[in-house]
Amino acid sequence: MKASLKLWNEALLVIPNGNSFLSKNPSRFYKSNWPIYFSRSKGCEVWDINNKKYYDFSSMGVGTNALGYGVRYIDNKVIKNIKLGNMTSLNCPEEVELAKKLLKIHPWADMVKYARTGGEGNAIAIRLARAFTKKNKIIICGYHGWHDWYLSENLKKKNYLETHLFKNLKTEGVPKILSKYCYSVLYNDIDRLKSIISKDKDIGCFIMEVTRDKRPKNNYLNKIRKICNDNNIVLIFDECTTGFRETYGGIHMKYKIYPDIAMFGKAIGNGYAITAILGKKKIMECSKNTFISSTFWSDRIGPTAAIATLNYMKKHKSWIQIKKKGKYIKKQIIKIAEKNKLKINVSDLDSIIRFDFENIKNKNFFYKEFINEMLKRGFLASNFLYVSLSHTSKLIELYLRNFDETLKKINVSN
Amino acid sequence: MKASLKLWNEALLVIPNGNSFLSKNPSRFYKSNWPIYFSRSKGCEVWDINNKKYYDFSSMGVGTNALGYGVRYIDNKVIKNIKLGNMTSLNCPEEVELAKKLLKIHPWADMVKYARTGGEGNAIAIRLARAFTKKNKIIICGYHGWHDWYLSENLKKKNYLETHLFKNLKTEGVPKILSKYCYSVLYNDIDRLKSIISKDKDIGCFIMEVTRDKRPKNNYLNKIRKICNDNNIVLIFDECTTGFRETYGGIHMKYKIYPDIAMFGKAIGNGYAITAILGKKKIMECSKNTFISSTFWSDRIGPTAAIATLNYMKKHKSWIQIKKKGKYIKKQIIKIAEKNKLKINVSDLDSIIRFDFENIKNKNFFYKEFINEMLKRGFLASNFLYVSLSHTSKLIELYLRNFDETLKKINVSN
Repeated sequence: MKASLKLWNEALLVIPNGNSFLSKNPSRFYKSNWPIYFSRSKGCEVWDINNKKYYDFSSMGVGTNALGYGVRYIDNKVIKNIKLGNMTSLNCPEEVELAKKLLKIHPWADMVKYARTGGEGNAIAIRLARAFTKKNKIIICGYHGWHDWYLSENLKKKNYLETHLFKNLKTEGVPKILSKYCYSVLYNDIDRLKSIISKDKDIGCFIMEVTRDKRPKNNYLNKIRKICNDNNIVLIFDECTTGFRETYGGIHMKYKIYPDIAMFGKAIGNGYAITAILGKKKIMECSKNTFISSTFWSDRIGPTAAIATLNYMKKHKSWIQIKKKGKYIKKQIIKIAEKNKLKINVSDLDSIIRFDFENIKNKNFFYKEFINEMLKRGFLASNFLYVSLSHTSKLIELYLRNFDETLKKINVSN
Repeated sequence: MKASLKLWNEALLVIPNGNSFLSKNPSRFYKSNWPIYFSRSKGCEVWDINNKKYYDFSSMGVGTNALGYGVRYIDNKVIKNIKLGNMTSLNCPEEVELAKKLLKIHPWADMVKYARTGGEGNAIAIRLARAFTKKNKIIICGYHGWHDWYLSENLKKKNYLETHLFKNLKTEGVPKILSKYCYSVLYNDIDRLKSIISKDKDIGCFIMEVTRDKRPKNNYLNKIRKICNDNNIVLIFDECTTGFRETYGGIHMKYKIYPDIAMFGKAIGNGYAITAILGKKKIMECSKNTFISSTFWSDRIGPTAAIATLNYMKKHKSWIQIKKKGKYIKKQIIKIAEKNKLKINVSDLDSIIRFDFENIKNKNFFYKEFINEMLKRGFLASNFLYVSLSHTSKLIELYLRNFDETLKKINVSN
């Protein structure tokens, strides 16, 4: 721990907030003894910079490594192309191969663009939707990154976006005028959506996460699709987090409701930076009328990793295994909580588990104790768990046993 | 060529415009026989997908590979960390090491943030400047990417941005209202800058490229620094392209004028995706009041590559060598043009050479012939040349000889 904390204190002096990605900020872990920095990783094992090993039953790279860390097949493909050459003045053929692969999985889509980060991917989708409809305004539902068009919703009413997965998204430096261009709706609230659209004819797109903590009710997704069709609104599914975890493709495939644009990130590169934007031809070809271009979108590592990841997923039917593992863990966690007389609320997807204990007095204290006890037992764990292929049955049982013993210990000590 | 063209035709069906990065689009090369796709690269050699070898005397990855392709020292560091683990739920220690390294080179700066692409880096700088000054408006000078705040300048007057390096930047899908938040000035035009600032008290930042095709005249940079100080305007130097080519750090070091924020990209990763945003503490710490965060900004490849690149640069004093090579090439190109009775205008930096023949009838035809003839002779070449460490004296002479013979041939055939 000492080396990590020392480095973190150094980081705080030279990097604002200590790092560039909030979800990996130790402040998110209830001021526990979270190890902060890693030196190496393999499977679901992570070694901190003191060379202490943990089983990662937390976020597995905040959703990037659905297949586990250090998957040799993928790493070898990347290393091979690094040795051949990652970057030149010409294009890499892998971007065409990946596009074809993604389109085969998503036959509703005709064309693909690439970015490297999810925030960029979302901003590209918004630009294309606006270019296509010639309408300016956006309706959002879910978490869609750090860009101005999204955060502007929080200018209206402080912390409005906190209903959309992330709390306390702060907005200084976002031009206030943009808040006029953004509306947000809660998941399953079809009435508010209809009401906004009926009053404002300048709505060009509806961007949403297909499903996260809630499932669609009363034909929600069908209704959305119809409303968008009827009003010339581009329907965008942000699948950066949900894609390729429980389905081989977007989770929208499960519901058989198809968007006009969808973004895939995180899991599709299994830890390597790549985001893909898929869409219908008539919309994607608006790229001809709007400048969207960046140097590093042409690197070879991104598409190389994604092709290998998709191959590996397909071979191992990872999405079936992950869903099954997740379902099992959810069920067991509820049982264990009950056994320990704790009321637990388990939400989100089977592959991304979130749980909250409801009858505890001091939430911060409880989770801090929970995290610290699990760390002592060799687990990175918090009140969420991104399930990966590397979470073997044996390790899942080990996690559940330690989960149980940890709850017992906290309950006794309180 | 056939395989490349076949693949490109396939790409056009599945990727709008065929690729995601305009500068690597074959349409930029005067409809020549540009090979489009690469299979491997080493030094300044690039093999297309037909395994035909070329010497890259064009953009060397559009400025990313100032040290050449496949620098073993850098690749090995990246491969080592891929084998150890590129991504986990924890942070990589390399981001702290890189921050310290960059700050040591730039003592005017206190803190560092990371992104992966230059467009993102620029958008982060703008957000921070706005958050710090609580002012909304921006003055731009130079090329700063594809984001809304920048392109909005082109909404005012068609192709206004074409004076800023890139022609025909199209703007559909950028909200028109944003054009009220952006002004542009030409390089060295201090009067227009003063005039805008005197009339509009909402100017929060001035973002510029320190020097590209023109050098500062009449104390231009000093004057800018003073104007920004006097008016609480954040001065941002976009050094994504200029940084670490002719100086070990930003090219601003040469002029001893220091910004409040600077972005470095391209060359600092030598072909691996990384962009760093450096700035003064009081501005960078505004990160606490504005949400700026993205998953892939935490990957380990970016900072690993940058640390290795900086080490390699320092060891080989790459910036001195590159500048020297570039100066020599510029001088020789002018001589060769004169010898061939062609009027040539050579501009941009010594390390990024641009040349235009001024007394030719059909420019498109001329450059197409030039590119095709150079391709036949085994060179990727156009009317620009990003000089790299891998351009050895021997290869430079070979390029110059072929350059001469190519001009001769075109002149005779016309």
